[in-house]
Amino acid sequence: MSVNQQNESQLYIGIDGGGSKCRASIFCPQKGVIGTGVAGRANPLHGLEQTFNSIIESTKLALADANLAASDAQQLIAGVGLAGVNVPRLFDQVNNWQHPFAKMYLTTDLHTACIGAHNGDDGAVIITGTGSCGFAHVGDQSLLIGGHGFALGDKGSGAWLGQKAAEHVLLNLDGFAADTALTKLLLAHFNVDDAMGIVEHLAGQSSSTYAKLARIVLLCADNGDEVATDIVQQGAGYISDMARKLFAIHPSRFSMIGGLAEPLLHWLDIDVASKVADALSPPEIGAILFAQQQFAADNRKGV
Amino acid sequence: MSVNQQNESQLYIGIDGGGSKCRASIFCPQKGVIGTGVAGRANPLHGLEQTFNSIIESTKLALADANLAASDAQQLIAGVGLAGVNVPRLFDQVNNWQHPFAKMYLTTDLHTACIGAHNGDDGAVIITGTGSCGFAHVGDQSLLIGGHGFALGDKGSGAWLGQKAAEHVLLNLDGFAADTALTKLLLAHFNVDDAMGIVEHLAGQSSSTYAKLARIVLLCADNGDEVATDIVQQGAGYISDMARKLFAIHPSRFSMIGGLAEPLLHWLDIDVASKVADALSPPEIGAILFAQQQFAADNRKGV
Repeated sequence: MSVNQQNESQLYIGIDGGGSKCRASIFCPQKGVIGTGVAGRANPLHGLEQTFNSIIESTKLALADANLAASDAQQLIAGVGLAGVNVPRLFDQVNNWQHPFAKMYLTTDLHTACIGAHNGDDGAVIITGTGSCGFAHVGDQSLLIGGHGFALGDKGSGAWLGQKAAEHVLLNLDGFAADTALTKLLLAHFNVDDAMGIVEHLAGQSSSTYAKLARIVLLCADNGDEVATDIVQQGAGYISDMARKLFAIHPSRFSMIGGLAEPLLHWLDIDVASKVADALSPPEIGAILFAQQQFAADNRKGV
Repeated sequence: MSVNQQNESQLYIGIDGGGSKCRASIFCPQKGVIGTGVAGRANPLHGLEQTFNSIIESTKLALADANLAASDAQQLIAGVGLAGVNVPRLFDQVNNWQHPFAKMYLTTDLHTACIGAHNGDDGAVIITGTGSCGFAHVGDQSLLIGGHGFALGDKGSGAWLGQKAAEHVLLNLDGFAADTALTKLLLAHFNVDDAMGIVEHLAGQSSSTYAKLARIVLLCADNGDEVATDIVQQGAGYISDMARKLFAIHPSRFSMIGGLAEPLLHWLDIDVASKVADALSPPEIGAILFAQQQFAADNRKGV
């Protein structure tokens, strides 16, 4: 079988796994995307088993959506973009997994997001969702900034905005900080009436629980709440600085992706906001493009 | 049997459970403390099963240390001071536990720490260890401040100092913040050479892992490192404000306890630092005094 024949009948699966969700899309070269599935978080930093389970679950759902059998996973060539695998130990652990696919090509969720946003071309992306991070790929240069995760970094992310807001509201309720609309809205959000009620809902919770508070912080900031505005400005300032660092390697395109990309846009510095271009395809399509690029390269090398 | 006869032969166990350790001391009215045991973390906010296991484990160790059988737990009257049980749901869940003791009296770790620090008398305490919080008890008034836990509050605590330092060092390594001695010492602490190495050691870790970095932050601050000094001053400023809030109900004595009480002392405002008196007994002795007070009250009421 020649490379071309093989490619035309070959099914691919693109998987995008992060702090809150794992999305899978099955791609047929003749028909495009034929099935999709979404499962829970898949960040190896927070648990390998959960990551593998989420990949398998989203794959099963995508196969069922494409009217394929669960056993057809072994026909798929997988492109997998995961948070956390910029840590070499985690990359190796996931890469050595006895995965259910014909082949699996692993890279970071940032890399697949960037490939997707620019439809396979070079460029830069900043992801602001549950977490925040930046990535640029130009020729043989690639640049990764931030993405250190909840409680360590991820400034400007949903979890960071939510955590800063919760921190302030608790200081306010203890009499250490100013009372603003943020306090009332956060108490109402949890349907509680004191600091203890907030602590009960947030203590020991994952970044995705904090990220759910981000909309409240942005709403308050957009309505002029001083505390919320200060938090959002700090976060957006960091994102603007991050973009300028990515621009240093001269990416031809720049996109902001993730759930907070749109609401944060008007808080970014104008020189950064004016460079933002639409993401052309979502990260799971980037993962498919990555799998196709890698598989074609393997075939050229005769692997 | 009269109350006095009962009290003279009755063994007590005092248990102090928090974010990193659970300490148990067995007390005999004739001989004083006859056995002690230390087990892992016992904070119901972060897991009920782990809390119960740590209480049982520290009790077993204390019984063995006292040359008693494990089955003698059922002879003990227990005073248990735990982090997190200021949340009513958690108080109820621990209080309804099928515990191994003859009786169990439950309260917050702050309450037993305060009873211990002032040998059963009224007073105020601030605990700065893995977490931070304040408590004062004067007559029928009691005041609880802070203690909301890692990533929500606990300013000035070991985990907070460590987290702020890690956050800064990662910003520094990504080129967003100034380079100081703190960066070099944190990299050396983890024996790594980049941001990724630090993330690998800290991501998803508990507050006690962050708290281990506090000594480095304090060391840098004591040596004039600007970033570390700023972090420690922010934390100590919060602790000073917290103390003044506790003073509002006029406690006759005030103690600072926990692993960071001593190193933070010279960073506190002078009006606060000058009021600090030695803690007279540790929290697990406070838990014994609490059990004795409660048991005596029950007997007076004929319970």
